[in-house]
Amino acid sequence: MSISGEMLIGQTTVRGKNGQIHGINAVTGETLAPAFGGATPDDLENACALAQAAFDTYRETLPEHRAVFLETVARNILALGDALVERCMAETGLTRERLEGERARTVNQLALFASVVREGSFLDVRIDPARPERTPLPRADIRLRNIGIGPVAVFGASNFPLAFSVAGGDTVSALAAGCPVIVKAHSAHPGTSELVGQAIQRSVRECNLAEGVFSLIFDSQHSISQALVADHRIKAVGFTGSQHAGVTLMNIAAARREPIPVYAEMSAINPVVLLPHALAERSALIADTFIASLTVGAGQFCTNPGLILAIEGPPLAAFEQAAITALSAVPAATMLTRGIYEGFCEGVEKLRAQSGVELLGRGRPGECLQGQAALFATRAHAFLAHTALRHEVFGASSLIVRCPDADTLLQVIEALEGQLTIAVHASADDYPLLGTLVPTLEKKAGRILLNGFGTGVEVCHAMVHGGPFPATSDPRTTSVGSLAINRFLRPVSYQDFPETLLPPILQDANPFGISRRVDARTEP
Amino acid sequence: MSISGEMLIGQTTVRGKNGQIHGINAVTGETLAPAFGGATPDDLENACALAQAAFDTYRETLPEHRAVFLETVARNILALGDALVERCMAETGLTRERLEGERARTVNQLALFASVVREGSFLDVRIDPARPERTPLPRADIRLRNIGIGPVAVFGASNFPLAFSVAGGDTVSALAAGCPVIVKAHSAHPGTSELVGQAIQRSVRECNLAEGVFSLIFDSQHSISQALVADHRIKAVGFTGSQHAGVTLMNIAAARREPIPVYAEMSAINPVVLLPHALAERSALIADTFIASLTVGAGQFCTNPGLILAIEGPPLAAFEQAAITALSAVPAATMLTRGIYEGFCEGVEKLRAQSGVELLGRGRPGECLQGQAALFATRAHAFLAHTALRHEVFGASSLIVRCPDADTLLQVIEALEGQLTIAVHASADDYPLLGTLVPTLEKKAGRILLNGFGTGVEVCHAMVHGGPFPATSDPRTTSVGSLAINRFLRPVSYQDFPETLLPPILQDANPFGISRRVDARTEP
Repeated sequence: MSISGEMLIGQTTVRGKNGQIHGINAVTGETLAPAFGGATPDDLENACALAQAAFDTYRETLPEHRAVFLETVARNILALGDALVERCMAETGLTRERLEGERARTVNQLALFASVVREGSFLDVRIDPARPERTPLPRADIRLRNIGIGPVAVFGASNFPLAFSVAGGDTVSALAAGCPVIVKAHSAHPGTSELVGQAIQRSVRECNLAEGVFSLIFDSQHSISQALVADHRIKAVGFTGSQHAGVTLMNIAAARREPIPVYAEMSAINPVVLLPHALAERSALIADTFIASLTVGAGQFCTNPGLILAIEGPPLAAFEQAAITALSAVPAATMLTRGIYEGFCEGVEKLRAQSGVELLGRGRPGECLQGQAALFATRAHAFLAHTALRHEVFGASSLIVRCPDADTLLQVIEALEGQLTIAVHASADDYPLLGTLVPTLEKKAGRILLNGFGTGVEVCHAMVHGGPFPATSDPRTTSVGSLAINRFLRPVSYQDFPETLLPPILQDANPFGISRRVDARTEP
Repeated sequence: MSISGEMLIGQTTVRGKNGQIHGINAVTGETLAPAFGGATPDDLENACALAQAAFDTYRETLPEHRAVFLETVARNILALGDALVERCMAETGLTRERLEGERARTVNQLALFASVVREGSFLDVRIDPARPERTPLPRADIRLRNIGIGPVAVFGASNFPLAFSVAGGDTVSALAAGCPVIVKAHSAHPGTSELVGQAIQRSVRECNLAEGVFSLIFDSQHSISQALVADHRIKAVGFTGSQHAGVTLMNIAAARREPIPVYAEMSAINPVVLLPHALAERSALIADTFIASLTVGAGQFCTNPGLILAIEGPPLAAFEQAAITALSAVPAATMLTRGIYEGFCEGVEKLRAQSGVELLGRGRPGECLQGQAALFATRAHAFLAHTALRHEVFGASSLIVRCPDADTLLQVIEALEGQLTIAVHASADDYPLLGTLVPTLEKKAGRILLNGFGTGVEVCHAMVHGGPFPATSDPRTTSVGSLAINRFLRPVSYQDFPETLLPPILQDANPFGISRRVDARTEP
């Protein structure tokens, strides 16, 4: 397969006539061929009409069929071979090792959702059999299953060009749920997007699915993306990106005649709380792992540790010294795009100019478009006074907040907005203090972790990659892990349907052997 | 217990100083004593502060403790005895039989949620154990549970003064989820609200719970209700009522710095599709049951059948004739409030004045504030042309849409907005046609039922009382049945926590024997 610059609308390829975007070599800043044509309103109309037309048959695909489709997507992504990795390296500046790892994560994620589809508990099948003899009124036969919510619009992330993009967690969980997907390709990696889109388009064909199950469009301006979210056929939105863009999509969705859910994963500073005994026992070790987590992938992770909270004293001073030393050896790293690089530089300069904020140290300086890591410190009262200090600086920048005592530490935690993760470093002697913090941590984040850092988000059943606003738009959900499928489902009850008219999954015979609740019991 | 007109804020009783509301005798229009004082901003502040303070301890109550609390509420409601029923009859005009039935439904609902709390699967416990040996990276120990989303604001319905009000489905599912609740009493039954509120307040005390678990406020104006939804401590809203009021609350919630979910059950016309063979075989029987469903409780049900869809011909003519005859014998019935009565009359007059709409028949005329049932007919093309014909007329009014053929029938169904229920009357010979309709019905309603009517909403595990907008604000949810608890939960992951710091429900020992997912397996 080759990169043509064309959109994938159902099974057709379409040259967009509404402006152009280009991939940019992240290292050199050079424009990459070919040009990608932006979607017109007609292109959008076609994609939406196809998605709607595909919904009824796609959502009734049998579990095995749908699972095989997801596995076919995985196989076809791998079959893209090195061409995918090389294009992606050029467009993102990320390393081969990282992208090969991310590709593995992407195909593992497809395999996980294939297993979720086969297992079937996401359908939440419930059967309350009729009780004709009940008095004063007989009970009807009532059966419930989840169905796909409808066609889903997906806006991928720049920082995970594979695992959070065209075939990323949003797309895969929506497809697993039975929803057609229209992806708006991220303009930072259009060639990568087209290649992965071709793998999905081909999988749709190989699995004999309705063509509207998947479309990929490019957008040279915001209006097409906004029209996609506003389209009455779209029933949910998955998004990963900035708070500004996420809130814009939330507002469009809320203003529709029929408001729809937007699952936006937006911004977090992922506080790391260093408790006194842990700090006293292993400040240098924590500092080294902190700097590694802060600077991996140029700090371009949603779960990047942007805030350190600890109580003042010699152990914190030792931690700071060790962190400064470790940081000074970290090379500057190419960032994903010029816009992200400039945003990072601006965020660092703002922190540097903020009264009450001290620049502790920096990583090694770099070349054009390479982010130079930065570590700042401030005092708790300054942090509490200036809400600007709570804003995410996307990239390898972190702020240490020195608290005079444990009460102030708690006060700082309570002043935080919603987060994806909060990490705590604690020794056994810290557990009593940690126990008092946990209820607050639970209210602030989707994932709380001990003696680690939030970077490295396992794709598994128990993962929550979510959290209260502004970390995400909806704290009831996760965008990573098998629970992500719940975002794209809605329940429907069938009352007094004859066996032949019931969806197979609800029939007495239970043809797929899926676990279901019959009255209060779970069977089989 | 007696009715004082005071609000219940935590364990205190507070006389509101912000205007007054009164109960009104629904039959006579007389003002009932006492006056109920409206909440001031300070009262609201106190209720919200108490709710927030109660959240951390209440959400960690052990399953048995929380279940017993719900059962205590049920017992204390029954202990109110006839005083509750009589006050409620006066305030609503509903019959003793109906209200005794509704009280039974309310206490059964509490018992159902007590069983849900004990059973524990709503916590969705997931454990992905550590895999230290995994390469290239070891896997951490990750455990997930659902926790309550936070304090919940509940706005009860006028038409179910017990089962959808102070101790109704929203309150009970939120309490079961571990969320404190602040109820804004419906101004149509303030005395009923106070009595039920006293039963909950007393239960909080008897179960030694934090007092902020429950508060009840009165509102003499809209500003306090709106401020309640806007308060940063409130994390979700349950509402049953008009589309206008529901959308107002949705907009307030969406405009917050931290948007929150609003679960608004608003309006539906609950189409009834009469398929040809069923109509030919039993038009008179269907007509009789239709008129009974239309007029029960003065037609004041969310699932009232406000629309009949059928194909023209002699069987439909026979159905209409039988319906007219049955309707003519139905006495007028007292409506809940003067406002609802006036809204009903206005809706009927609007339909009567609409070109292309024919008044087929009416029920018997009544006295002051008694609604006189009405049945209209129109043709499909008129229905499709005038969106005003799709609006709910709350009360016993229904519109028959005569379709020239099956294609037009499908077209009419496709033009419908979201519904709570769609009923289909079908004989076995209609099943092929019905099979072609089901995919559309699933997209339009939360519950599809065969050979029945939507009135009568079973409180069970498989019930969906929900549906796409404008039936509700959120088609992913139900406000009736055990699944309603999901609305007030959010997942949290705990990574690498030592056993002693884990919430008991996540500990290896599984002290409550709750079913949980360990990797892909369900245990025990």
